[in-house]
Amino acid sequence: MAQIMEKVPGPEDKQDPQAEQDAKVKDSLGKIKNKFIVMSGKGGVGKTSTSVNLSIALANKGFKVGIMDVDLHGPDVPRMLGLEGMLDLNQNRKLNPARYSENLKAVSIESLTPNKDEAIIWRGPIKYSAIQQFIGDVEWGELDFLIIDSPPGTGDEPLTVAQTIQDAKAIIVTTPQEVALADVRKSISFCKTVKMEIFGIIENMSGLPCPHCGETIDLFGSGGGEKTARTSGSAFLGSIPFDPNVVLCGDSGTCFQDAHGDSLVSQAFDRIAGKLAELV
Amino acid sequence: MAQIMEKVPGPEDKQDPQAEQDAKVKDSLGKIKNKFIVMSGKGGVGKTSTSVNLSIALANKGFKVGIMDVDLHGPDVPRMLGLEGMLDLNQNRKLNPARYSENLKAVSIESLTPNKDEAIIWRGPIKYSAIQQFIGDVEWGELDFLIIDSPPGTGDEPLTVAQTIQDAKAIIVTTPQEVALADVRKSISFCKTVKMEIFGIIENMSGLPCPHCGETIDLFGSGGGEKTARTSGSAFLGSIPFDPNVVLCGDSGTCFQDAHGDSLVSQAFDRIAGKLAELV
Repeated sequence: MAQIMEKVPGPEDKQDPQAEQDAKVKDSLGKIKNKFIVMSGKGGVGKTSTSVNLSIALANKGFKVGIMDVDLHGPDVPRMLGLEGMLDLNQNRKLNPARYSENLKAVSIESLTPNKDEAIIWRGPIKYSAIQQFIGDVEWGELDFLIIDSPPGTGDEPLTVAQTIQDAKAIIVTTPQEVALADVRKSISFCKTVKMEIFGIIENMSGLPCPHCGETIDLFGSGGGEKTARTSGSAFLGSIPFDPNVVLCGDSGTCFQDAHGDSLVSQAFDRIAGKLAELV
Repeated sequence: MAQIMEKVPGPEDKQDPQAEQDAKVKDSLGKIKNKFIVMSGKGGVGKTSTSVNLSIALANKGFKVGIMDVDLHGPDVPRMLGLEGMLDLNQNRKLNPARYSENLKAVSIESLTPNKDEAIIWRGPIKYSAIQQFIGDVEWGELDFLIIDSPPGTGDEPLTVAQTIQDAKAIIVTTPQEVALADVRKSISFCKTVKMEIFGIIENMSGLPCPHCGETIDLFGSGGGEKTARTSGSAFLGSIPFDPNVVLCGDSGTCFQDAHGDSLVSQAFDRIAGKLAELV
């Protein structure tokens, strides 16, 4: 059965453990050139599938990429990447990330939980501590990109990332309907408040070509992401259509871009990855 | 700009304010016959549209219903109900909920925020306090049903509800794909850990009839919700198909069940409301 953790382990019994942790965090971050947090106002807009597919597109371009999954209550990165098993400690007593490929590695609470069906029932302070450990206690090594998949909203997890990784840039994922866009405006307000640069906005699930008749179905409307980017003065990174194969591949841990390399979705991710690659 | 609140106002300057708050919470809850928390493992499964449509279906059957929106980072209930304006205080210094109809009232952080685009950047402890106030400091009055719309996952908000409302029952909403079901199993584990009864599981976005050719498209697969209910020994409350009109109505604050009373979605909500009504 899951455990409820409401308190952080007390610092009083260690010698300035926060300073020690801060030093480890700084050391890890110093080896990572570009840090992006993938955020969304609303859940279920395909934030994790965007994080995963963007990371794979970058890795395919030859970059060294890490994915850090800070969605502690719904950690879906390992399943979508088809990563099984637990993380192990190396000789420096740091965690080795799980390896998806030569260029792509990942860390998630899911890879540290023996029983995958168990809930992580953590209140805020323990989340802060966990995310700091995901950075400082993990052997990330030299990376061109760290892609951070965060839970929806503007709570403890993105706040901890913003405060810990001061040069992180935000990529905000949304679907086109107004209810989602209302929440995106909150994400933009969040970034301004914590002084995090918004790299751009991605519109996901932007129309579905019917697999039977080929006509486009506007599941959630369309164009709202681009309009919100324009209104808020943010860059628009692109639209990604809905493709049921993304769901199927995510469920089975199959690489969508390997299986459907010519699809509109793969092309869209390749274009967006190109925009990130210009930074390197 | 949004404010970051990391600390609860200190109790030291008041005379046992927690006991006073507890008494107000108990008083409010004593007048409410049935309490349901609508949860999901994953975001974007249509949890809020389920909460809203289920509440309307119950109100249409003549019951007195309240919706309490404890999704503090993405509060979408007022928009979906078309409720504008702020809540006001009555002569007992309690908040009056917003009124959707004679039988249905709602409280949300959105109705207490002057600037709707501003993010609520709250760490855990302040959320606990806010949710307690949503119960104890609101003039809910006599209700047959309180439907509590919670954010996805197993964090502070559902934990606070479980600890504060000990007779609350859970309704878990999911979409049919495995990535969503993995998170549902975490919600089930959460309920067992906090000893909250699971009333049942709803499968949402369960197939889309193409508006052009009429053929069914399995956006997220189908049947996974019913299977998970069976495996976990929970009741299955029903499947709700995807209908783009639900999105359109949610965006414009139009009542879907008024506009599309004969639709498969309205029929599904009416059936599920009937299962809740058996409790009264």
